[in-house]
Amino acid sequence: MYDYQPPLRDMQFILAELAGLDDIARLPGCEEASADVIGAVLEEAGRFAAGVLAPLNRAGDEQGCRLLEGGRVATPEGWQPAYAQFCAAGWLGLSLPVEFGGQGLPKLVSTPVMEMWNAANMAFTMLPILNQGQAEALRIAASAEQKRTWLPKVVSGEWGSTMNLTEPQAGSDLAATRTRAEPQADGSYKLFGQKIFISYGEHELTPNIVHLVLARLPDAPAGVKGLSLFIVPKFLVEPDGSLGARNDVRCISIEHKMGIHGSPTCTLSFGEGGGAIGWLVGEPNRGLEVMFVMMNEARFGVGVQGAALAERAYQMALGYARERVQGRDAVSGAAGRPILCHPDVKRMLLSMRARVMAMRTLLYTAAGWFDIAHHHPDAAVADKHRRYVDLLMPVAKGWCTELGNDVCDEAIQVFGGMGFVEETGVAQHFRDARIITIYEGTTGIQANDLVGRKILREGGATLRELIVELRASATALSAAGLAELGDGQGAAIDALESATDWILANGREQLGEVLAGAVPFLHLLGTVCGGWQLGRAALAARARHAAGEGDPVYLDGIVELARFYMATLGPQAAAHAATVREAGGALTRFDEAAF
Amino acid sequence: MYDYQPPLRDMQFILAELAGLDDIARLPGCEEASADVIGAVLEEAGRFAAGVLAPLNRAGDEQGCRLLEGGRVATPEGWQPAYAQFCAAGWLGLSLPVEFGGQGLPKLVSTPVMEMWNAANMAFTMLPILNQGQAEALRIAASAEQKRTWLPKVVSGEWGSTMNLTEPQAGSDLAATRTRAEPQADGSYKLFGQKIFISYGEHELTPNIVHLVLARLPDAPAGVKGLSLFIVPKFLVEPDGSLGARNDVRCISIEHKMGIHGSPTCTLSFGEGGGAIGWLVGEPNRGLEVMFVMMNEARFGVGVQGAALAERAYQMALGYARERVQGRDAVSGAAGRPILCHPDVKRMLLSMRARVMAMRTLLYTAAGWFDIAHHHPDAAVADKHRRYVDLLMPVAKGWCTELGNDVCDEAIQVFGGMGFVEETGVAQHFRDARIITIYEGTTGIQANDLVGRKILREGGATLRELIVELRASATALSAAGLAELGDGQGAAIDALESATDWILANGREQLGEVLAGAVPFLHLLGTVCGGWQLGRAALAARARHAAGEGDPVYLDGIVELARFYMATLGPQAAAHAATVREAGGALTRFDEAAF
Repeated sequence: MYDYQPPLRDMQFILAELAGLDDIARLPGCEEASADVIGAVLEEAGRFAAGVLAPLNRAGDEQGCRLLEGGRVATPEGWQPAYAQFCAAGWLGLSLPVEFGGQGLPKLVSTPVMEMWNAANMAFTMLPILNQGQAEALRIAASAEQKRTWLPKVVSGEWGSTMNLTEPQAGSDLAATRTRAEPQADGSYKLFGQKIFISYGEHELTPNIVHLVLARLPDAPAGVKGLSLFIVPKFLVEPDGSLGARNDVRCISIEHKMGIHGSPTCTLSFGEGGGAIGWLVGEPNRGLEVMFVMMNEARFGVGVQGAALAERAYQMALGYARERVQGRDAVSGAAGRPILCHPDVKRMLLSMRARVMAMRTLLYTAAGWFDIAHHHPDAAVADKHRRYVDLLMPVAKGWCTELGNDVCDEAIQVFGGMGFVEETGVAQHFRDARIITIYEGTTGIQANDLVGRKILREGGATLRELIVELRASATALSAAGLAELGDGQGAAIDALESATDWILANGREQLGEVLAGAVPFLHLLGTVCGGWQLGRAALAARARHAAGEGDPVYLDGIVELARFYMATLGPQAAAHAATVREAGGALTRFDEAAF
Repeated sequence: MYDYQPPLRDMQFILAELAGLDDIARLPGCEEASADVIGAVLEEAGRFAAGVLAPLNRAGDEQGCRLLEGGRVATPEGWQPAYAQFCAAGWLGLSLPVEFGGQGLPKLVSTPVMEMWNAANMAFTMLPILNQGQAEALRIAASAEQKRTWLPKVVSGEWGSTMNLTEPQAGSDLAATRTRAEPQADGSYKLFGQKIFISYGEHELTPNIVHLVLARLPDAPAGVKGLSLFIVPKFLVEPDGSLGARNDVRCISIEHKMGIHGSPTCTLSFGEGGGAIGWLVGEPNRGLEVMFVMMNEARFGVGVQGAALAERAYQMALGYARERVQGRDAVSGAAGRPILCHPDVKRMLLSMRARVMAMRTLLYTAAGWFDIAHHHPDAAVADKHRRYVDLLMPVAKGWCTELGNDVCDEAIQVFGGMGFVEETGVAQHFRDARIITIYEGTTGIQANDLVGRKILREGGATLRELIVELRASATALSAAGLAELGDGQGAAIDALESATDWILANGREQLGEVLAGAVPFLHLLGTVCGGWQLGRAALAARARHAAGEGDPVYLDGIVELARFYMATLGPQAAAHAATVREAGGALTRFDEAAF
């Protein structure tokens, strides 16, 4: 109904003006990422997203996946040829290492590309995302021989990948993992147990599936320090690389979910027929460390899904608001105008666009930091950016997924009754989005990570460093004649600093109260960072306009977008800060028996 | 999985302590509503909701409705016997006039009853709600003969009812209505046109369906002042009351919706076979006035759906949080405890309960005002309460439906991955809830009504009167030793007053800017009113505790709930007020071409 339009103009603006593409292209190992090459990659990725993936999205939702006889799983029509085309074009390995068949492009480039795929078809895109995550895990932890056997097939997408963490009693708490691995005489292991919520745990899009499984060795210590990582393929692989016997892993059910129907969510049973054959990856009992390295990437990727679904829903709502004629212009009294003329509808669209751009700018900027952390020759510079990435990863995941849901929700509101009807397609994005604040760690888990591991553990050092940078940015806005933006941002930073002080002062003695404010604090930090990024965008837009470059309507729109953000989301900062400080007392006193 | 528990304790507390049940039972015409009778009615309604309606809810969602051959519509299994039982018990006419077979109980009594039905099974409950609305319309506008013919069957539920307003080009804007009615020689009319989004537009739960249809007479003026109201029955009625020929109205499709699957949403075609026979209700061209009277009631009822779904989702989340064991207590380090021990999970539950209680107290209090407005012998008292009802109706509808959605959303978050899986049932409430901010006027429509008709048109007189009452309530909190509640509420009222001043100062010259802040203003007023009501609840709870009456754990919980509300939602008031004042400028300047 409203075709997906790759938002290349916004992407290019952010990459060039805000996320430092030119600087990153000068880093060792990133030389391929010239503006020309990147422009071509984004255009081509956008064509693929809009032309191949997006047209399958609705049918994927309607058809969903089906569990067939013998534990086979059918994916929606069209998934197979699209996936073949995806792999043939080399998209899967875009940012994976060249030595295993990838293209080694920086994260700053793969991030907008991932955004487009997710916007076009999130349920489909989860399949290659799994390969990318698994490739990263194998790269970190696998032996040279394991890498030779598995990595090229995973990087090319010839074989599918899964991550097997969750069990019925072990969701957020992996310490409760029960799946066990028994060592065999030949150096392999036999695995026994059940894993749930395994995305693409079974399908026939690829001839083989490589399951990466968290399990316990017989002598493993209790808790998370007793978890080891295993490769358990669907089909065993012969020494010549051909596929051998079917392994003892079966899909016993698939979930009936609210969204992402095109992505089969499987319960996998390992070892019912005598033991699923697997191989240990990395050192015994250190599986979770590998998972944690990967998890940062995976969480970032889910944050990108937030921006992606928000963009898609925004485009649909804008398309509808420009076409649907209803009511009279409240100011002029004119009839026959589309509903975008109504101030409240324009407010919703502007609010969506402001949040999409804030998320996108923050995510791309963080992707750039990631590249600097990995490639910058100056260790101090690299370290600073690594610390920024670590600090803000829970925000990239938690805040962007929460906002992604909010924007999809608002898009339905623009459609009115038509939004509640599945036919228009906007409801699907709302339903799909509902998982992203949950998987790869709920917003609450992200917020606890932010407050506990990222702030309290280091006494707030990196956050203090960031706040100095935020203040400088607010000052620059005022100096450039954008005083109301600078003032608004200054007030928001004050709120952030006061809440930070309170957390640091009370984190030891009043941990319960502090954690009660963790999610509001995550929203606070996200709100301030979003304002920071849109402030930077406004400065850049104004400078380009003054230099006579670019489309002045677009550039002035960026400035007004930043002002609108500061007028609507900016004041939330102080409210969140008050909640951080004040909610824990009543929460602690409230007797659970009074619920 | 988690059975619905009628929240009778909370309901009784609010009715007795806050909504003035005793006073209302002394009003002329309300004498039946003694505390004993009401207690029995609520218990019995709760039993029916939990025992009959709630068990059908999930199956209704899963089966949905089907369009059969010949335009017939099948409703879910179990709907038929439940509806028969519902009507036989006389539930439908609970608050309808005694002279037409109703029980004439005050709205203060029917409101908690409606809440329970909606919480148990919203899709089912929409059917009797339609009868209640139609009965009200006929009572206001129908002739004595029409009342004799139709009202008893509508009030008993023997025949179903529908409201036919929306057309493809006429959604929020009824001025665009095209369905036409041609006068016939015998005094009847023939109707031609198509109506969409007609809830229970076709089904076989009742032998006849009475459609109330908005249409234009041949000589009607353009716009909303040219709309007339017609009765168009599915089967014509013979003079002896028996059913005659099938009328020329057909269901041509039903919508595939995101939620309320058990409620068939129909497209009805009138007059394809030569004209659907109908009768004019009330005066020509004044149909919308009748609709508007009804609409206030209908909007209030949708607000109640917000509280109802929120309560249901809260109960499920609480049940899950008390059972699900995961992780360690962050403060004590204890393992094996349910997730309710985690501060962030407790925060979510407390936030849900606080919002449910704020909504419920506001709605019941408003229901009491409604009864006073209708029955109080002192015209000045009646008038004051009528004005309060009118002022706050957009808040009761808009704010409670928005909060209802938020609470259902948060319930999914408590369930984590299990919330995204349809099996647990919490996803259904989230999907069902998504329509309530849309139908009977979107939140934007409510907010425009609030700012335009309810505030600007009378220069803010009633709102100023309400603010005086709010201030007195804040003062009373401080005087009773609940100073932090009084101070918080005082600050929130300051914010409300500043935003009100701004709207009144700018409404004439800057209407676009003012309307851009209408929804934030609605949230602001709702937030303040919710705090007001919970403040009253805290005062009452404290007084009862001091008097040694009631369960002290419950009563102290009410006080902490009010404090928690003030710490989490209270600070939003100032943020909303800032947005009301500041967002319109950037919104007005933003060029639509820059979207």
